[in-house]
Amino acid sequence: MTGRESITPPHRYRDNDKAVGIGNAFWDMSERNGLAGIVAELDDGLLRTADGHEFVNFTCCSYLDLDSHPEVIEGAVAALRRFGVLDHCIPRSRVQIPALLELEASLGELWDADVVSAISAGVASAGLLPLVASGHLGDGTRPLMVFDKYCHVSMANAKPACADETEVVTCAHHDLGFLEDMCKRYERVCYVVDGADSLGGYAPVKELNDLQDRYGLLVYFDDSHSVSAYGERGMGYVRENSRLQDARTVTVATLNKAFGTSGAAIVLDGFDKSVLRVIERFAGALSYSQPMNTAAVGASLASAAIHRTPELVTRQTRLAANIELFDSLVRTAQSGAEFPIRVVPMGDDAVIDAGRRVFEAGFYVSPVFFPIVPRGTAGLRVMMRAGQTVDQIRSLCRVLVEVGADAVTLADEVPGGVLR
Amino acid sequence: MTGRESITPPHRYRDNDKAVGIGNAFWDMSERNGLAGIVAELDDGLLRTADGHEFVNFTCCSYLDLDSHPEVIEGAVAALRRFGVLDHCIPRSRVQIPALLELEASLGELWDADVVSAISAGVASAGLLPLVASGHLGDGTRPLMVFDKYCHVSMANAKPACADETEVVTCAHHDLGFLEDMCKRYERVCYVVDGADSLGGYAPVKELNDLQDRYGLLVYFDDSHSVSAYGERGMGYVRENSRLQDARTVTVATLNKAFGTSGAAIVLDGFDKSVLRVIERFAGALSYSQPMNTAAVGASLASAAIHRTPELVTRQTRLAANIELFDSLVRTAQSGAEFPIRVVPMGDDAVIDAGRRVFEAGFYVSPVFFPIVPRGTAGLRVMMRAGQTVDQIRSLCRVLVEVGADAVTLADEVPGGVLR
Repeated sequence: MTGRESITPPHRYRDNDKAVGIGNAFWDMSERNGLAGIVAELDDGLLRTADGHEFVNFTCCSYLDLDSHPEVIEGAVAALRRFGVLDHCIPRSRVQIPALLELEASLGELWDADVVSAISAGVASAGLLPLVASGHLGDGTRPLMVFDKYCHVSMANAKPACADETEVVTCAHHDLGFLEDMCKRYERVCYVVDGADSLGGYAPVKELNDLQDRYGLLVYFDDSHSVSAYGERGMGYVRENSRLQDARTVTVATLNKAFGTSGAAIVLDGFDKSVLRVIERFAGALSYSQPMNTAAVGASLASAAIHRTPELVTRQTRLAANIELFDSLVRTAQSGAEFPIRVVPMGDDAVIDAGRRVFEAGFYVSPVFFPIVPRGTAGLRVMMRAGQTVDQIRSLCRVLVEVGADAVTLADEVPGGVLR
Repeated sequence: MTGRESITPPHRYRDNDKAVGIGNAFWDMSERNGLAGIVAELDDGLLRTADGHEFVNFTCCSYLDLDSHPEVIEGAVAALRRFGVLDHCIPRSRVQIPALLELEASLGELWDADVVSAISAGVASAGLLPLVASGHLGDGTRPLMVFDKYCHVSMANAKPACADETEVVTCAHHDLGFLEDMCKRYERVCYVVDGADSLGGYAPVKELNDLQDRYGLLVYFDDSHSVSAYGERGMGYVRENSRLQDARTVTVATLNKAFGTSGAAIVLDGFDKSVLRVIERFAGALSYSQPMNTAAVGASLASAAIHRTPELVTRQTRLAANIELFDSLVRTAQSGAEFPIRVVPMGDDAVIDAGRRVFEAGFYVSPVFFPIVPRGTAGLRVMMRAGQTVDQIRSLCRVLVEVGADAVTLADEVPGGVLR
């Protein structure tokens, strides 16, 4: 048109045309139907829109409701008053106030690990994965980086940077056979995968342990959906189930979900102090002067304190009971599993209307449908929390069944479960 | 060794071996000499180490000392109490509490722009630059992405992702001739550059305006070092000096520096609402459920309020006076310039010892030396703030001259400047 050069993109690891094309149609459709773009004030566990509609959030990842715990909020306030700044802007490798160190020491003690903080799990992965790729978080050998096809986009987005430091491939979901083949072929391999999936399900931690033992496989987990909600002192699914706690495993986890605050933790074992300094100095944004702010640090210290008390177990137990109650009323492919996420199947043409009716009845569940999932797999995603009441869950399930969910009947009653 | 394949990295846009190799030697040397790895409590503007050493921070980017402003801290506390959570974890494109929207409206009014928040300028750039590369923040044409050689690493790190969406090149610092050549050759070009450099200096905004006018050049600025410190209502150097306020310019800026809080602002003009939604939905971490926390939002609302009062001008004026005072005492290549950063030249073999003596005298300035800068260009980096006192600046300059800085003499007195 202008006679000037246009560009053909390589699209080896990403394609915005596709992502935006597919995703935007989904979001526009959701928003047109009032199921996205919702603004609401949070008040005593309920959300209220400007026009007065009240609803319970069944798509919030604060699985233990620690986000609104008074001690968490007061911890944030106390830290603001103590440190007198949200941030005193200078790279921590030069000069730092003790805030991050105190948090890292507390989380390190809590989970018996070396912990490095980050402002988000995404920032942690964007910084760490290229260092893993270049061998700086291993024995110096550049690993083949194998990304699980369904790993969270915050990890998948690091593929191009990793591909400039080593080779990168994508494997089918939890494809242990492929991983073993790669381990036989390459000097070193790193597998990048979610510890707990955002659509429910866990990584095959024990089977991965075997590959780690036999081939020195390095595994990079994002365990954001299970930390706090799962395991002793909320150490998460990966740490609770892995028998290897050494430099063959790297785990990152957000503190925004069940932990209830803001920020992220990188959980490490068995790395030399010198490697921990390399992370602090070279893992991307971890070296910039934008750390977790003091309010997030104070809230996280308070949440860590709660993690050391029986209250954590009480909340985990309540979450488990709520999940069990849900499963006793509505059948999903996830029924009986421990994780707090369920996808209630709906017809492709019915899912939007179903989501709208559930919302009108006072519950937000998030519809997923084509084009973000294949036709024939649409559904309403439900996230359980410790703080949802029995009444709320029963009412939600009643509405779900009315809009087409598969009710659990007497014949397939879950032992010990509750009937409709 | 194992008979298995090892990997040769492409290293087109990054090289951790080099970065870690060079950088680690610098940091280890700094730390061995007590000039890095310092932990200190902040108390009434002074830093105090555990062993009682007190010092003034002359390498802090809180140029207006708004970070410790009581109204900023109380703003954070008020927001925590009002919203009752640091974060209510769900992607904002589904459901959001009004926190981010209120902040974006306030900053938008302050700077007469469309503002989108992010947890850091780095996260903003990591999310936005690939969308720019794929043409989604322009007219749909994929631009040639030209990264300035000295642009901040948070932008340079986006090169591999951008290179998967379009072509990427790196140009010499502020090379307007090269940019014009590229504009003639390619349908569309985007230049990625710091608005204000971290080692002092500004982008050639007016000359870039000419290229934007003539060729439709898109310019992506990170103006983190000048927002708040510079311009009416702290709009920053780029916005104050650009005569074009439309979709040919994208500016990101941290809120952690002169603004005094935590987070970042993306400042936009003239984009359709639909493009703003694309940013919220697809600009990397902007779409995840890890937004600015409510404490950072509340602090930022309070800082924005201060930006609307004469107090901002008072602080900007004090900063300018402090810079002038410094320039009247110590000569640097930056003498007379408005930006708050100075590099005091020191011999390669003297810089570490000089930095140590300055620290012992009660001032932290950050040494830069080989291998992070070429031999012959070592120096002590000094950052001025509004809150430093005349006595502190005079004392610092006295020590700097003692350790080898070039004193300003009567003969080259700055007009209106202060003598030693």
